[in-house]
Amino acid sequence: MNPTSKTYSASFLTSLAQRLFVALGTPDDLATIIATSLVSTNLAGHDSHGVIQIPIYAAAVQAGRIKPAARASVAPATAMLATLAVDGAFGWGPPAACLTVEKIAERAQQFGISTAVIRNCHHIGRVGQYVERLAAQNLIGIAMCNASRAVVPFNGRQRMLGTNPIAVAVPRQHGQPPVLFDGSTSIVAGNKIKVLLDKGLPTPAGWIVDSAGQPSTRPADFFDGGGILSMGGHKGYGLGVMVELLGGLLSGASAAFLPDYAAVNGVLMIAFRPDAFMPLDDYLAQVDRACAALKASPGVDDNTEVLLPGEPEQRAQQERAQNGIPIPEATWQAICDLADRLSLAV
Amino acid sequence: MNPTSKTYSASFLTSLAQRLFVALGTPDDLATIIATSLVSTNLAGHDSHGVIQIPIYAAAVQAGRIKPAARASVAPATAMLATLAVDGAFGWGPPAACLTVEKIAERAQQFGISTAVIRNCHHIGRVGQYVERLAAQNLIGIAMCNASRAVVPFNGRQRMLGTNPIAVAVPRQHGQPPVLFDGSTSIVAGNKIKVLLDKGLPTPAGWIVDSAGQPSTRPADFFDGGGILSMGGHKGYGLGVMVELLGGLLSGASAAFLPDYAAVNGVLMIAFRPDAFMPLDDYLAQVDRACAALKASPGVDDNTEVLLPGEPEQRAQQERAQNGIPIPEATWQAICDLADRLSLAV
Repeated sequence: MNPTSKTYSASFLTSLAQRLFVALGTPDDLATIIATSLVSTNLAGHDSHGVIQIPIYAAAVQAGRIKPAARASVAPATAMLATLAVDGAFGWGPPAACLTVEKIAERAQQFGISTAVIRNCHHIGRVGQYVERLAAQNLIGIAMCNASRAVVPFNGRQRMLGTNPIAVAVPRQHGQPPVLFDGSTSIVAGNKIKVLLDKGLPTPAGWIVDSAGQPSTRPADFFDGGGILSMGGHKGYGLGVMVELLGGLLSGASAAFLPDYAAVNGVLMIAFRPDAFMPLDDYLAQVDRACAALKASPGVDDNTEVLLPGEPEQRAQQERAQNGIPIPEATWQAICDLADRLSLAV
Repeated sequence: MNPTSKTYSASFLTSLAQRLFVALGTPDDLATIIATSLVSTNLAGHDSHGVIQIPIYAAAVQAGRIKPAARASVAPATAMLATLAVDGAFGWGPPAACLTVEKIAERAQQFGISTAVIRNCHHIGRVGQYVERLAAQNLIGIAMCNASRAVVPFNGRQRMLGTNPIAVAVPRQHGQPPVLFDGSTSIVAGNKIKVLLDKGLPTPAGWIVDSAGQPSTRPADFFDGGGILSMGGHKGYGLGVMVELLGGLLSGASAAFLPDYAAVNGVLMIAFRPDAFMPLDDYLAQVDRACAALKASPGVDDNTEVLLPGEPEQRAQQERAQNGIPIPEATWQAICDLADRLSLAV
């Protein structure tokens, strides 16, 4: 554990976050969804998208970029029955994304597959949580969203694309957590570079370029007009562009690199039923067999094991549910300062 | 051009390939589809999946793994109206995949989105060609398939996954070719390692491991029980696993690393209508605006430009349609040998 961190229980952090969001003008039920979303992300080990966001969100409310009392709603149905759009109404992202999950799950149950975009949507947080919710209903979930520009195109030198995550989840039997892929199409998320900057450490070779497009290992170069590279070179670039054209354009958020880009996350989700193609029990049994075979595959050395996609998150969750969530002192102080400003006892 | 290659026109190669497939017992119409599919892949610059496959396919016919006269058909409809399964009947892959494109396009037009798997499916060739066909109908296409094991898991040392390509295409206006992502989830396709082996050249660092899971630059180590690495480390591994669980398991082909893996490609396709979310003309105009902005983005130096995903293939196609397709002498000789055995004049 980081020596400058203290650990807090998930229930304590959720309750505190919920009260902070209410104090910011959020209806009680929405505040619970947002607080749960953030703390579940800390539990999964992704602190960059967890409660560290609370002061950032509060600033967005105070600047008028998030309307805390706004409620997402389903746009009027079209003749294309297996599709729908959710209007986030420039309110909180997680409730809009949870509504989208609920509605595409209904449509997917009926038609076998469904897709939706979220319009006017603020930050939805860790994308994986939404496909996990779909998988918990025995659906296969795919979700993607764009984000503000941070990534240079392959062969380019100027920030253009967002880090543009893609998440896919496959259900498992007996209540096991899903097989989960959840990753940015960039080599790393911007927040991890901030962590290195704060610690005075270099970035590994191949992560970033400076403002002239030259390879750099100085984290400051990223914040000084540089950019992050795509994962896998032209491949991550190609996938990142697709997230802009699907999540960004279809949601109306626009592409991160176009002048009318406004919303924080342009989201597209797809859900479909594995039992469109074979009995559900057969599929779940085959997924388990495949997972067992992957995990039985030998590691590169005796100290290394092959993990399933999503397993690092599940291990973090078990460990942190038991031992608490470490929160760095600076993050905790920023949350306490916000509570003070809102006259809220921590 | 490679000095040991000669160039041939696309029409000549297509006609020759078509006659070879007919001589192997393929109905005339199916032979045309397969020949066109292979030669279009050479035109797109991906010679590893082009006419070089003809002798390999012929061997699969002669070994009984491809039934040349079998016709793919749509499996009986279920209540999940936006989904369907195509039975490839262990016949040729490209006609089965083209039938799947036709049928999910119909369902997507009706419901807004559709998905399908192909059962009992042989090699479908370059996956990108099928999403290009969807985009030509103003649909967004997603396709993926697994393939025989070649790739070691992240942190593993044993071949488990296929190279497992994913393709995504977005339509463009005025008959322009689509924006196309088409890439394996491995760092490189197996055939590219074969090319280096044949030339006596080393593989770049980070492409392959030997049979002990140790990094290697000797192409022979791959063919001697080694494996290819995933693109982007754990990210490509995660996506590759998803292709096994979606394309592999849902199609009934099984996962490449399970003992019952039988079919060559376990295919999943998704098609959906961008005009489910906004007027089509608006979307196509926005895609064009995004493409123009990406292409106007400065290259890393004066001699480098930012390309759109799919643009390298489109440039190869223009060049080769005009100047012909270079075929290495060894590939040409293998095709001529096959023609001899089938008593066919080249």
